[in-house]
Amino acid sequence: MSSIFTKIIERQIPAHIVAESEDAIAFLDINPLTEGHTLVIPKQEVDYLFDLEDDLYTSLQLFAKKVAKSMKQVTGKRIGTAVMGLEVPHAHIHLIPFTQMSELNFTNPKLKLSEEKLAEIAEEIRLAFTKA
Amino acid sequence: MSSIFTKIIERQIPAHIVAESEDAIAFLDINPLTEGHTLVIPKQEVDYLFDLEDDLYTSLQLFAKKVAKSMKQVTGKRIGTAVMGLEVPHAHIHLIPFTQMSELNFTNPKLKLSEEKLAEIAEEIRLAFTKA
Repeated sequence: MSSIFTKIIERQIPAHIVAESEDAIAFLDINPLTEGHTLVIPKQEVDYLFDLEDDLYTSLQLFAKKVAKSMKQVTGKRIGTAVMGLEVPHAHIHLIPFTQMSELNFTNPKLKLSEEKLAEIAEEIRLAFTKA
Repeated sequence: MSSIFTKIIERQIPAHIVAESEDAIAFLDINPLTEGHTLVIPKQEVDYLFDLEDDLYTSLQLFAKKVAKSMKQVTGKRIGTAVMGLEVPHAHIHLIPFTQMSELNFTNPKLKLSEEKLAEIAEEIRLAFTKA
């Protein structure tokens, strides 16, 4: 069965997609720690990030760097990263705008943002990414 | 002034180094969240990971992947990653062996491991890395 992330890639499940490349995609986390919290995933359905072949791994990390740059431009904040991957068996890199370490604690209550707010944030990042 | 990490690279400050490449180095975190918690840093003293040029960034991420592979081999655990970077102004990737999300919480109390234990863990990872 396809992972929930593969369903997002295939547009079977809606998501606030902020960027896409040949082999990766980035979309807003629907349970964000901070505004702009984004997930970057390879299109290949691999459970563990470090199991990716070197070329796809490199491509994914460079894509994440470009997305992070756009996110910093929009939020004015540093972008922290985290990869844990127990929630969904499809490797994903969290990109999280933050100013304080405490904001990167995954046990924090998640933000409740309206669909409108999420769409607005996604649009800003998408625009910055397109221009980069 | 050199960052504390540059002093480690230059062997002015001792550290449990587990791997080294032309432009990166990996050593045990002295305040580990779990046994084997390692820091991977570029030799270039850059504060923010995403400010690295693409080639050095790629090289660093591939080096981290190889170190993570060795760590998984030694610990038998998945390796989580985190990049925050407010503590030391020299970009560093945390590589953390874990089985539960809760272990990746940076507000957790850090482990107190003896120098002997740290040296033993470092030796195991170093050996695995050399053989990889």
